[in-house]
Amino acid sequence: MPGALDGIRVIDMTQMISGPVAARILGDQGADVIKVESPGVGDLVRVMGSRDGFSATFATSNRNKRSIVLDMKTGDGLTWMKKLIETADVFIQNFRPGAAERMGLGEEALRAIKPDLVYVSISGFGESGPYAHKRVYDPVVQALSGLTSIQADRDTGRPRMMRLIVPDKLTALTAAQAITAALLAKERTGKGQHIRLAMLDATVAFHWPEGMATHTWVGAGAKRKQAQLAQDLVFETADGYITCGAVSDSEWQGLCRALDMPEWLEDPRYQTPAGRMLHAPERLTATQEVLIGQASQYWLDKLDAEDVPSAPVLDRDTLLDHPQVLENEIVVESEHPVGGSMRQARPPERFSETPSSLRRPAPVLGEHTDEVLAELGATTSEIDRLRGGGILG
Amino acid sequence: MPGALDGIRVIDMTQMISGPVAARILGDQGADVIKVESPGVGDLVRVMGSRDGFSATFATSNRNKRSIVLDMKTGDGLTWMKKLIETADVFIQNFRPGAAERMGLGEEALRAIKPDLVYVSISGFGESGPYAHKRVYDPVVQALSGLTSIQADRDTGRPRMMRLIVPDKLTALTAAQAITAALLAKERTGKGQHIRLAMLDATVAFHWPEGMATHTWVGAGAKRKQAQLAQDLVFETADGYITCGAVSDSEWQGLCRALDMPEWLEDPRYQTPAGRMLHAPERLTATQEVLIGQASQYWLDKLDAEDVPSAPVLDRDTLLDHPQVLENEIVVESEHPVGGSMRQARPPERFSETPSSLRRPAPVLGEHTDEVLAELGATTSEIDRLRGGGILG
Repeated sequence: MPGALDGIRVIDMTQMISGPVAARILGDQGADVIKVESPGVGDLVRVMGSRDGFSATFATSNRNKRSIVLDMKTGDGLTWMKKLIETADVFIQNFRPGAAERMGLGEEALRAIKPDLVYVSISGFGESGPYAHKRVYDPVVQALSGLTSIQADRDTGRPRMMRLIVPDKLTALTAAQAITAALLAKERTGKGQHIRLAMLDATVAFHWPEGMATHTWVGAGAKRKQAQLAQDLVFETADGYITCGAVSDSEWQGLCRALDMPEWLEDPRYQTPAGRMLHAPERLTATQEVLIGQASQYWLDKLDAEDVPSAPVLDRDTLLDHPQVLENEIVVESEHPVGGSMRQARPPERFSETPSSLRRPAPVLGEHTDEVLAELGATTSEIDRLRGGGILG
Repeated sequence: MPGALDGIRVIDMTQMISGPVAARILGDQGADVIKVESPGVGDLVRVMGSRDGFSATFATSNRNKRSIVLDMKTGDGLTWMKKLIETADVFIQNFRPGAAERMGLGEEALRAIKPDLVYVSISGFGESGPYAHKRVYDPVVQALSGLTSIQADRDTGRPRMMRLIVPDKLTALTAAQAITAALLAKERTGKGQHIRLAMLDATVAFHWPEGMATHTWVGAGAKRKQAQLAQDLVFETADGYITCGAVSDSEWQGLCRALDMPEWLEDPRYQTPAGRMLHAPERLTATQEVLIGQASQYWLDKLDAEDVPSAPVLDRDTLLDHPQVLENEIVVESEHPVGGSMRQARPPERFSETPSSLRRPAPVLGEHTDEVLAELGATTSEIDRLRGGGILG
C-alpha cells in the first residue's frame, strides 16, 4: 500500500537538522523528496561526527530522499531548479532570511512558476528583529528560548542544555505537521501558501504548557509559585536507577503499598494530587530514602503489582534489547550502500491503510542528479554539458 | 480566513498531555475539537499544580476546544457519544490498550457508525508486550527510552531527566502530523484508517538521529566512538552565562577572531568540522577559559560581529521581554473567564492563507454539553432528563 503522502513531491533545499528531518518525515509517509545540494561538501551533516564521509546522523535524517546537486549560482543551475519546482507540491528552505530571494528562489519567483506551491521558510529567529540576521544552531535556541534555564542544575543554578537537539527536531515535527495541513488545505481549495516557522517560536510554544506554567496567569490573581509538572524522578536503588511516580489518588495509594509506607496514606500533605504536587520536594526525598534500600527489580515488581507507573532507567545499549522495544519492532536493521549495516528507528506512527516505510537509504551527494534531470527531460548530452561546466558538482 | 483544518471535527477523548496537545494543535488550525470527559474531576490536568481548579497547563493545552461531559458507563451516555461520532472526522483516545473496546468505543464499533473515521490510539508502550498493560507518565518513557541516560550527569554518571515533559509533547506533535496526513489521504481516497502511536516509539524515533548515532552503524565497520552532536555549550562569563558555537570553517575562524585566539587557527586538531567534533572536550574547555574573562555583552557583540552563532542564556522572566520574542509576537495575552488574565505562546507556524488562531479559551468541565447535544438534535427536555440521571455530570 502506498503511504499517506504518496504522489506528493517535496523539494528539500535545507541543511542541518530542522529542515532535513521535516522533509524526511514526509518522505517516510510516501512523498517523493528530492534533496537539492550545492557542489562541494553538500549538507554539512554528511560529514559531522563522521570519519569517512557518511555520518550516522545524516543517514537517519535523510532516508527516503533522492539527492541532486545543482550550482544555483549559475544560470543553468537555476533554470533546472525551476523546471524541478514546476513538478513540485512543496518547497522547503532554511537559509537565513533574504538569502533565498537573493538566489532567485524567493516565494514570488517560484509562485510565478508554480502558483499553488506550498512554500516553506524555516528560520532560527524569524524574518525580522535583532536576531533575524544571525546564524543559528540548536544550542543558541536552547539558550534564547529559556530551555537551558528550565534545565538548570537544581543545586548550583547553572543553566544546562538538553543533550539532544530538541529545538531542531521539534521544529522539524512542527514543520511537517504544518506542511501536511497546508497540503490538505490545498487539496480542498486548490490554493498553495507560504508557511513561515521560526525555531525560537516553535521551541517556546513547545515548552510553554508546563515550562511557562508559572508565567501563564498574570495580574492580581497570578500564581507564580505554582509547582512545575516536570520533576526529576530518577531514584537510586541498591543496584541502579529506576523511575516511578503517582498522580491520581489510586496510583498514590498503590505507591504507598508498594513501598510499604502506610503512614503516607494518612499524611495530610498528600491527600490530593494538588497537595502532593505542592509538597513534591519532601515527598520525593522520602521516596528516595525508601528506594535505596532494595534492588531495582524488587521495586519494579512491587510497583507493577500495584499498577504504579514505573520503569528501569535504560542506557543506549540496554535499550536495544529491552523486551518492549523488541515487541514494538522499533529498531530496524538494513544495509546502507556506503555506511554498511545500520540500525535505525522506524517511523513511530502506524497507519493501518497507508503505512510509512523505509524505502531508500540516505543518498550520497548527487546520487540521483542524472535520474532526476532525465525525468525533467534533460538529454544525456545536456547532462554531460552541465557536468562539464561544474554545475552538477 | 479560516484555518487549514476548518470544517474538520475531532473528538478528543484523551487526558493528560500527549492526546490533549495533539488535539489542540488541530484546534489551533481551525478544527472543531470536542473534548469528552467523564463526570467528576474530568481530565486530571485541570487541577494538577492548581489551587483553584483551573491549571495553567490545562489552559494552554486545551484552548480551541469545546468540553462536554458524558458518562460512558451508561447506555444513554454511549448512545449520545455515538451520535457525536457520526458527525466526526477524527476520534482520538489514549486509554490503556483494551479499555476503549471495553467501553464500547473500539475501532470496530465506531467504524460501524462512521466508516471513514480516522481512529487514533495513543498509548504509552504499544498494544502488546510486557509494558502494554502499564500506566504511563512522561518520566517512565524518559527512563525507558534512554533519554535519562543521554541526559546523565557528565561527572557522576547519574541519569537525569529532561525537566520538560518532552516525550508527551513530541508524541503530541507526531500524532498531530500523522492525523493530518491521514486526513489528506482520506480527502484523496475517501477512506479512513486507524493510527496507532506509542510514546515509547515516538521518543526513540525522535532521539535516534544524534542520540543513537553511536549505535547506528553496526558490524565490522561500526564506529561506536563517534562523537555526539549535542554538547553542553553553556559558558560562564564574568557576569552570567552565554552560548556560542561554530560548526563550519568560516564560523570557527570567526570564533577564533572574536575570542582573540589566532593560535587556534593553526592548531592541527581544529582544521576541519570533523576534527573539531573529535576534539570537542579540549576545545570547549579552552573556550570556557577565555569567556570567563569578560562580561556576557562584550562577548555577544564580538561574536555577532564575526557572524558566530551565539545568544545569552535567558530565564523565564527575561524571555518575556527579549526584543526578538517581542518582535515575533510569540506571547499573546488574553482573558480567561475563570483563570483571569493569561499569557500563552501563539501557534508557532505562520500560514499565509489559513492562519492558525486562538479562538476559544480552554473550557470549564462540561461548558458546552448542552450546546453540543442540541446540535446533535437533543431537545431541552431530553437534556434535562440526561442531567437528572447524572449522565452529564
